[in-house]
Amino acid sequence: MALNPYFMPTDGGDTAFTVEAPKIKFGYGALEEVGGDAKALGMTRVALFADPKTADLPGMETLTASLEAAGMHVTVYQDLEVEPTDRSFKAAADFAAAGNFDGYVSFGGGSTMDTAKAANLYASYPDDFLAYVNAPIGAAKPVPGPLAPHIACPTTFGTASECTGIAIFDLLEMEAKTGIANARLRPALGVLDPSVLESLPPPVIAANGFDVFSHAFESLTARPYTQRPKADDPQKRPLSQGANPYSDLACQEAIRLVGDHLVRAVNDPRKEDYEALMFAGMLAGIGFGNAGCHVPHAMSYAVAGLVEDYVPEGWATNEPMVPHGISVIVNSPAVFRYTGKACPERHLMGAKAMGADVKGLDPRKAGDALADRIIEMMKATGMPNGLSGVGYGEADVPRLVSKAAPQRRLLDNAPRPVHEAELTDLFTGALRYW
Amino acid sequence: MALNPYFMPTDGGDTAFTVEAPKIKFGYGALEEVGGDAKALGMTRVALFADPKTADLPGMETLTASLEAAGMHVTVYQDLEVEPTDRSFKAAADFAAAGNFDGYVSFGGGSTMDTAKAANLYASYPDDFLAYVNAPIGAAKPVPGPLAPHIACPTTFGTASECTGIAIFDLLEMEAKTGIANARLRPALGVLDPSVLESLPPPVIAANGFDVFSHAFESLTARPYTQRPKADDPQKRPLSQGANPYSDLACQEAIRLVGDHLVRAVNDPRKEDYEALMFAGMLAGIGFGNAGCHVPHAMSYAVAGLVEDYVPEGWATNEPMVPHGISVIVNSPAVFRYTGKACPERHLMGAKAMGADVKGLDPRKAGDALADRIIEMMKATGMPNGLSGVGYGEADVPRLVSKAAPQRRLLDNAPRPVHEAELTDLFTGALRYW
Repeated sequence: MALNPYFMPTDGGDTAFTVEAPKIKFGYGALEEVGGDAKALGMTRVALFADPKTADLPGMETLTASLEAAGMHVTVYQDLEVEPTDRSFKAAADFAAAGNFDGYVSFGGGSTMDTAKAANLYASYPDDFLAYVNAPIGAAKPVPGPLAPHIACPTTFGTASECTGIAIFDLLEMEAKTGIANARLRPALGVLDPSVLESLPPPVIAANGFDVFSHAFESLTARPYTQRPKADDPQKRPLSQGANPYSDLACQEAIRLVGDHLVRAVNDPRKEDYEALMFAGMLAGIGFGNAGCHVPHAMSYAVAGLVEDYVPEGWATNEPMVPHGISVIVNSPAVFRYTGKACPERHLMGAKAMGADVKGLDPRKAGDALADRIIEMMKATGMPNGLSGVGYGEADVPRLVSKAAPQRRLLDNAPRPVHEAELTDLFTGALRYW
Repeated sequence: MALNPYFMPTDGGDTAFTVEAPKIKFGYGALEEVGGDAKALGMTRVALFADPKTADLPGMETLTASLEAAGMHVTVYQDLEVEPTDRSFKAAADFAAAGNFDGYVSFGGGSTMDTAKAANLYASYPDDFLAYVNAPIGAAKPVPGPLAPHIACPTTFGTASECTGIAIFDLLEMEAKTGIANARLRPALGVLDPSVLESLPPPVIAANGFDVFSHAFESLTARPYTQRPKADDPQKRPLSQGANPYSDLACQEAIRLVGDHLVRAVNDPRKEDYEALMFAGMLAGIGFGNAGCHVPHAMSYAVAGLVEDYVPEGWATNEPMVPHGISVIVNSPAVFRYTGKACPERHLMGAKAMGADVKGLDPRKAGDALADRIIEMMKATGMPNGLSGVGYGEADVPRLVSKAAPQRRLLDNAPRPVHEAELTDLFTGALRYW
């Protein structure tokens, strides 16, 4: 037996899991304290990364005032790309190297926080750009020592970049999305002030809220850690350990909060909705940081990467792009109809937490009940109608499958096998929901 | 409004809280991996702290074999006192300084882990003994730099010393319990292998289980962070922040696990009971690490400190002492009868999670319902009958009150005011429960 039947020991399966959480400050007014936090971390000359969009937010003034009141010399850097590239990372690193900074503060979405991480790394330990990049594209060289402290202040919720040591970018010459992953890149502190969500357009709230839900529900239904083959060397236990009792706890609460607050936050928001969603994003970040996501995220890279002409409303761009949360949620209903069979009780729990009436429901229909509830919420929040809503048709399925199939790390974290045949069914099932 | 009505903003009250969790590895077999963990942390010459009791446990062999297989040079240190003193800390520091170690592993209860922390500190940065000790007894000098890595492997559950940067000891010449508290003392890794609980005598399981419950329930009912006056300098936000949404989550689950598993673990244990209790101890440690305990712990120092002739069964000692978990739980029912009024819904939740039937219960009786359920569980696990069960009578109440009253940090974290008059009532109420 085990703490929960989902974690029943298996022959050759892992028997232990690790627990780690980032250092976070959460609450209204937290941005006003960043100057004091910077001082406590020993900063005096601060590089403040903010993208041009977030630089207009009221929080930016609060943040800058707080840093200056604490005696920091602040230089703002805004030369960011919406989707960072090796080019924008290198430019930021040059800025950082020239500025002789002893601390970094970032104020923006995942792109902004990731750019600050990369700039801090290359300014601290200069090397060939590909040296620190993940293998096989780069040399995955370990970061030689500690970086300058970095305080990450997200202006959205759900990316959880403030919790991780990961910086994602597009390598232009290879047209590949890759990243740098090392625990030393993790910010010294994440500052989550729910007031920043008040300026987000409703579609951004909706997309991020669904991203949080999917982080949490993918982690909850990830292959249990006891079914992942135990590595010979325990140091090789992956970051994505599979579902475990600690991630379960964070994820269940995150799903409940999204279920209770997302629709209202999009249509008729109150202060506590922002607070709940930002807290849910933090919990889901802790959850997927310990458990790992699976199929909807694996599929999302294909959906985002192959976009041709979809331009989302609510994002400050005229370029075709599928925002991350949207590229995830268009897949989720189809995926959870498929995974329902693997762990019906978890799908039932998810459906209930999202607000579905599951009284007396046949557990064999749990995946469908959850999918139906997600679809209702997508309609209620103006999300696109599946893949067709972001410009894909049946003829695109083979291309989407080829692009998603190599994501084995994510796909192997699913509770049921997913290979090309299943991906074809899943992308087809995700084409249109109503 | 707020995420939860308990966290309603107040004038001048704090508006933010911090979240931090230690790095933990949890699960059966985790002790077998300590060699690999030590290697990954750069250790080659390891000081292994184990008290003579724990040195006989099967886990000690597993641990030593794992360290040696990883090529570590291991020196065992066992010259520990059950309740550490400045004398035993200094002796351990001398051993550490002479051994030229680059890593520490501890295998034991809180005393063992705390002694390893102190030895590591004084060997790394020698100074007057009182330099690093908490003010006003010591100079509370900040630790100058990082210590050697320390892997803490508890052989009990509930103390949570593996999660904290605190080392507690008795300063002999002043007959005072004090400590050293600095984040740099926190172990690099806590290794929680539930197999170690299999050798614990039933009274030790019971006492530690109630300690976990009380950590969790005190944190759940601590004064909400929004009612603690906000400090001018946010860096002065105390470690004991008060109840908050993050500690709530960990604590509620810890209470449920104790409610479901403790009585059976004492009387007819199965493997999953050990797993559940050790996991509950970790969650409660995360919870009270962020929220803080209150009255039962404040009273416990008096109960433990003034002991005259109580010698507990199940502990390897012939000296009078009240083990920590017992010194806490003898107070808890009296305290929760009193605090029930401050947050009835939380007391109802606690009573239900501990297994009481609360259907249709008048919320005004929630504190009593919880107290009654704790008393039932104390009887079912052979715990002493309140203060009279550990040798105190009515005549001792004034002495107990005088010793507990200065614990303002803990007392002010309670949801209702507690001064000398209330302490008198509470100690009197705790004299005898059945």
